[in-house]
Amino acid sequence: MNLDEVYSQLTTKTGAKLALVVLDGLGDIATSSQGNMTPLEAAHTPNLDALVRAGCAQGRMIPVAPGITPGSGPGHLGLFGYDPLEFQVGRGVIEALGLGVTLKAGDVCARANFCTLDADGNVTDRRAGRIPTEECERLCAILSKKIKKLGTTQVMITPGKEHRFVIVFRGAGLEGPLSDTDPGREGQPIAEAKPSKPTSAKQKKVAKLIQDFYAQALPLLAGEARANGFLMRGIAHQPDIPVFDERYQLKAACLAVYPMYKGLAQLVGMTKIEGPQTIREQFERYLAERANYDYFFIHFKYTDKAGEDGDFEAKKKYVEEFDAALPILLSKKPDVLAITGDHSTPCPVKGHSWHPQPVLLHSALSGNDKLDRFTETGANLGSLGVFEAKYLIRLMQANAKMFDKFGA
Amino acid sequence: MNLDEVYSQLTTKTGAKLALVVLDGLGDIATSSQGNMTPLEAAHTPNLDALVRAGCAQGRMIPVAPGITPGSGPGHLGLFGYDPLEFQVGRGVIEALGLGVTLKAGDVCARANFCTLDADGNVTDRRAGRIPTEECERLCAILSKKIKKLGTTQVMITPGKEHRFVIVFRGAGLEGPLSDTDPGREGQPIAEAKPSKPTSAKQKKVAKLIQDFYAQALPLLAGEARANGFLMRGIAHQPDIPVFDERYQLKAACLAVYPMYKGLAQLVGMTKIEGPQTIREQFERYLAERANYDYFFIHFKYTDKAGEDGDFEAKKKYVEEFDAALPILLSKKPDVLAITGDHSTPCPVKGHSWHPQPVLLHSALSGNDKLDRFTETGANLGSLGVFEAKYLIRLMQANAKMFDKFGA
Repeated sequence: MNLDEVYSQLTTKTGAKLALVVLDGLGDIATSSQGNMTPLEAAHTPNLDALVRAGCAQGRMIPVAPGITPGSGPGHLGLFGYDPLEFQVGRGVIEALGLGVTLKAGDVCARANFCTLDADGNVTDRRAGRIPTEECERLCAILSKKIKKLGTTQVMITPGKEHRFVIVFRGAGLEGPLSDTDPGREGQPIAEAKPSKPTSAKQKKVAKLIQDFYAQALPLLAGEARANGFLMRGIAHQPDIPVFDERYQLKAACLAVYPMYKGLAQLVGMTKIEGPQTIREQFERYLAERANYDYFFIHFKYTDKAGEDGDFEAKKKYVEEFDAALPILLSKKPDVLAITGDHSTPCPVKGHSWHPQPVLLHSALSGNDKLDRFTETGANLGSLGVFEAKYLIRLMQANAKMFDKFGA
Repeated sequence: MNLDEVYSQLTTKTGAKLALVVLDGLGDIATSSQGNMTPLEAAHTPNLDALVRAGCAQGRMIPVAPGITPGSGPGHLGLFGYDPLEFQVGRGVIEALGLGVTLKAGDVCARANFCTLDADGNVTDRRAGRIPTEECERLCAILSKKIKKLGTTQVMITPGKEHRFVIVFRGAGLEGPLSDTDPGREGQPIAEAKPSKPTSAKQKKVAKLIQDFYAQALPLLAGEARANGFLMRGIAHQPDIPVFDERYQLKAACLAVYPMYKGLAQLVGMTKIEGPQTIREQFERYLAERANYDYFFIHFKYTDKAGEDGDFEAKKKYVEEFDAALPILLSKKPDVLAITGDHSTPCPVKGHSWHPQPVLLHSALSGNDKLDRFTETGANLGSLGVFEAKYLIRLMQANAKMFDKFGA
């Protein structure tokens, strides 16, 4: 029997309030150049320290599998309890979510970018000289206005930064993935998008839609000096993911600022709560909405940004900013609180990494690991050990007493 | 290849003596109300401490899967090396084992209880007013005397506490599970036991047996004021479990006091050693029987009972009682000794829980984690890490040098 089915059979709804606070890219690694401290270790975190001393279980989480560095999609799906290897979300979908497009299951999405074509139709610049964002917006508006439908399939075009945009096909009977139309190097013509499963009628339908789209769109761009063509990559459909409240018996809300995370939350059926822009505001909104939901996903982006920049001091400062806001959340404490990252973004790496992120779990039943602080090194000593991130929500549910006993 | 097959192929019989001491429900959680100590941490355990300092490996074990709270059945099956998700034992079987019924593979067992029926055959009290145990014994004796066989199938009826009893059908070609005859609420008639697989001839045979049993039994109870009917739940057969000595090349004995644990041991092919009633007597009997078996399962119930009662002082006292007896076991030390629980029964939970239980492994090859004591917090730091309980016996076998090298 599938383990998720076992969990489902044991689940009962309770009135417990659960909160997952994600400090994006929280985990880091200590290096001698920073006094062998991580930003989390170097930060002044009196509120977090007090929470730890009040009784927490700590551990470290493997986002996907040992050594695998996740993107934001797999990182968050794991935290939401979906095995990132089982529930793969294509790049086109992630890109669309990142631009704030509201998707439905079955929507086929592609990352697209303008390019320059020569008279023979060969690509001479795969990024169209990185045209400015306003230029991209102008061209997307032209395409959007002229191409709203292809047969019965709806077409949605959303501009991104510089030369980037997203194309979404919405209609019955569509499926990805298809191969890129980007030939991968200059001097080649736009490639044909080919079904990954040549026998799939749904993928063949998408291949035909893409041909038709090019047939209508390229003439509209013919007069452009630089952006007279476009390439498509990561063509994939939004998978049908079992939604949160059915899977976990938890009515879930998302308190995120960036579209990508709102999109990922919506993908699993959370309600987006719009408005708050700072972590203080997010926590205040949690207080206001506490009665209306069972589970809150609260996302803080800036630790990841600082990690990506390799900016130790900034990452430390953002941890302190979070810590200073924490008493707002704790003023009406969730019954079960988890604080963690979706992955590590170590400053020395200047990017996401595979290093297991530290996690802290606090509830009346979390027990007390008798650690003084929440840090990577401390989490190594915790009772949760090193575990796959997909189990975090199961531990949260257990702490919320949502599971019956298994067997007699 | 299945991992159990790999282990089997690597296994060679040695003369090593292995002992598993289960302090039932041992694991606990620290809370501020008890000075941030668990009973194991608070207990005075000089003998255990000396053993730890002599060289032990420690860790924590997940009984079934993260967040899942096991019953005694799954908890012990895991300790015996059987994946509790693969080898599921129905409630009827566990109940029969708990009453000391000696089962064979294929026996179909049901938890039963007397109920009150009105003139129309509707249930008016699902527990027959909780008749006293003596009343239950009298009625079971009547049923047992009159109904010994149904066709070629043997019928065994065993009274339990108050209104509860167990029915076992023994014969060829029987299989569970079937649905309950308990309608789940008053005002309804006794339900029909339906096969879970409608195509299973074996389950259909059991359904017919149950109908026949009701047809013969109900008239025998017709004159009773309260207990004029009965309901059946958890109708399941004893699964065919690969027996211990074949699976592990270990001749195993059980030194348990309570019927449930003797039954679980017997389910996997251990020999029950009867007689000892205290942990001192159990250890003394181990000394006497040491030459006759390779593996001893020694079960101590009282830590779990105290946990169920939420009685911190009692749990601590029972740990100390175990510790005081330990030198008897150590006077002829097993070559490999594991001390652990089948799950945690934290005092604050007053019941079983999902918290990984601490485990200690001592052998000439266990290594030394250089810890001072055996505690939950200490076990977090041990070399065994956090692992699934089903691997404990494999670690014990490895410490007994029972495994050949895998590959060249």
